[in-house]
Amino acid sequence: MIEDKNQQRTQLSDLGEFGLIDHLTKNFKIKHTSTIKGIGDDAAVLGFKNKNIVVTTDLLVEGVHFDLSYMPLKHLGYKAVIVNLSDVYAMNASATQITVSIAVSNRFPLEALEDLYAGIETAASIYNIDVVGGDTTSSTTGLLISVTAIGAVESGAEVYRNGAKPNDLLVVSGDLGGAYMGLQVLEREKEVYKVNPNSQPDLEPYSYIIERQLKPEARKDIVKLLSDLKLKPTSMIDISDGLSSEIIHICKQSKVGCDLYEDKIPLDPQVISTCEEFNIDSTTVALNGGEDYELLFTISQDDYPKIKANPNFSIIGHIKEESAGMHLVTRAETRIPIKAQGWKNFNA
Amino acid sequence: MIEDKNQQRTQLSDLGEFGLIDHLTKNFKIKHTSTIKGIGDDAAVLGFKNKNIVVTTDLLVEGVHFDLSYMPLKHLGYKAVIVNLSDVYAMNASATQITVSIAVSNRFPLEALEDLYAGIETAASIYNIDVVGGDTTSSTTGLLISVTAIGAVESGAEVYRNGAKPNDLLVVSGDLGGAYMGLQVLEREKEVYKVNPNSQPDLEPYSYIIERQLKPEARKDIVKLLSDLKLKPTSMIDISDGLSSEIIHICKQSKVGCDLYEDKIPLDPQVISTCEEFNIDSTTVALNGGEDYELLFTISQDDYPKIKANPNFSIIGHIKEESAGMHLVTRAETRIPIKAQGWKNFNA
Repeated sequence: MIEDKNQQRTQLSDLGEFGLIDHLTKNFKIKHTSTIKGIGDDAAVLGFKNKNIVVTTDLLVEGVHFDLSYMPLKHLGYKAVIVNLSDVYAMNASATQITVSIAVSNRFPLEALEDLYAGIETAASIYNIDVVGGDTTSSTTGLLISVTAIGAVESGAEVYRNGAKPNDLLVVSGDLGGAYMGLQVLEREKEVYKVNPNSQPDLEPYSYIIERQLKPEARKDIVKLLSDLKLKPTSMIDISDGLSSEIIHICKQSKVGCDLYEDKIPLDPQVISTCEEFNIDSTTVALNGGEDYELLFTISQDDYPKIKANPNFSIIGHIKEESAGMHLVTRAETRIPIKAQGWKNFNA
Repeated sequence: MIEDKNQQRTQLSDLGEFGLIDHLTKNFKIKHTSTIKGIGDDAAVLGFKNKNIVVTTDLLVEGVHFDLSYMPLKHLGYKAVIVNLSDVYAMNASATQITVSIAVSNRFPLEALEDLYAGIETAASIYNIDVVGGDTTSSTTGLLISVTAIGAVESGAEVYRNGAKPNDLLVVSGDLGGAYMGLQVLEREKEVYKVNPNSQPDLEPYSYIIERQLKPEARKDIVKLLSDLKLKPTSMIDISDGLSSEIIHICKQSKVGCDLYEDKIPLDPQVISTCEEFNIDSTTVALNGGEDYELLFTISQDDYPKIKANPNFSIIGHIKEESAGMHLVTRAETRIPIKAQGWKNFNA
């Protein structure tokens, strides 16, 4: 939240489109043999032999999906890649290439875009992704990032949302609610900063949840682990909009119901303590918070031995017949219908 | 430019993200066997067997790339698809799928987005493309469209920008400058309309060039024709930024020079007459106007018999050694170095 007033500012108009793309992507290396041609022609050319490919795309809009007053541009670039990779992994595929398009107003100097692309490059490096294309243009206001991610999967290994069957176990990776509570802390500190720009917030007690918000990770490791375990989920989805909304997607598309157990929902201690501090119900946060980018999947009960005792996974419920409906079974053993809240941007 | 004040307006907030995507894409049909899974999961799944795939993406931003005061939303949807397909065809590939993401402010009612998607669907239908994904979100101001197009090409049939050789012929499809002059007419009429909203402009004399601006086409037919002629260009690019800029791309990437003959540049009579009316040099318009979406390519002289006398093609010059430079040979037989103007959005 501290801006260096002396930072170097190179006007974007000094470069023009071609100079800008070349400048921003000149350090990007091609790592995959499937990338036959990357940036620099009318289109990228990719070769996957007999594999199927998966394609997914997401838009991130300033003022809607991110707030630059507490989101450093490098983190934003990183996150813009991660949210798309998460969708690729949710298909049980390996992510291989992305394209990155940005629309940006003149208020951003070149150095800001260099930070953004440094974050993109870091994510591409860590997740072993080639950046193969994109578009760079001006906008009348603000910053917008559009990423398309491409992955490869052996034909038949894809996992859709629609394959859950009654009696399957409902499983989630990692823990939930952290990204949302990190956002609450950042929003609070922003208000404090507005009143007193010299305040020095101690964010150490919130380090995990702030990192979940500002620098989320996608669960590439889970796709590999499932493969190592020779475990093909019957359905899978990533948790971008909150657990409720994702469970509803799986149940509706699979034409099934489910019981979700409140006491099985994995929560980090920092999420629990911060929820207490903010006087927010932690279950509500896990159900509706979103942006955790964990994987939610269903497996046949026969596969239970493959995952039991694995600390990466929590079994949080089971699938039922469609007629049974979708319910949260609370700690008090009452049954509450699961409803979507999730995405409400158009209400803003 | 005439707005119906009584039109139906459904607020976007009445639908939410999931309702909106479902609503806008519910009539879209899947036509390709390569589309294994379209809209409705974390990612689309595509299968191209042993073919290579090409991927390209473009952003269109309100106030930068289009002006809704004379660009109907249906045309905008159509054009957003076309500009991406053009890049696929420029690789000598067939276009098969697109994803479409939009960011839109609350000032647009649902009916406006229905118009936009009707244009997208029309283009997808005419060009035989499946719409397999996308994202819909709110923006703080205006409308932004991000399209990613995917195509397939037999391995080895791709045509890049970097394959032109000295003595190759420089060839262009169709005619140039129309889209730019159509824009000049529309901008003039917008100014007239501001002064007198009751004026009824006679746009009939400009019908071809206005259509080139508002409803451009991509040269799918040229890719088929080249295949029928068993003619593989040595290099190819689509003309989105103007002939100069595209020639420079080919020459720089191929490490060659060229002579371009002014009297060979194909111009429609309506472009010539409108240039005279606006007192603009028609060669300058063809060189720098852009948005024509024709294909510019080079062929070996051995292939000349395959295209001579074909009305789809104009031979406008030939490739030389790099040391000879890139020149326009004028009607007066003077030689002028070719310079890029092209894209200047960041100067706005």
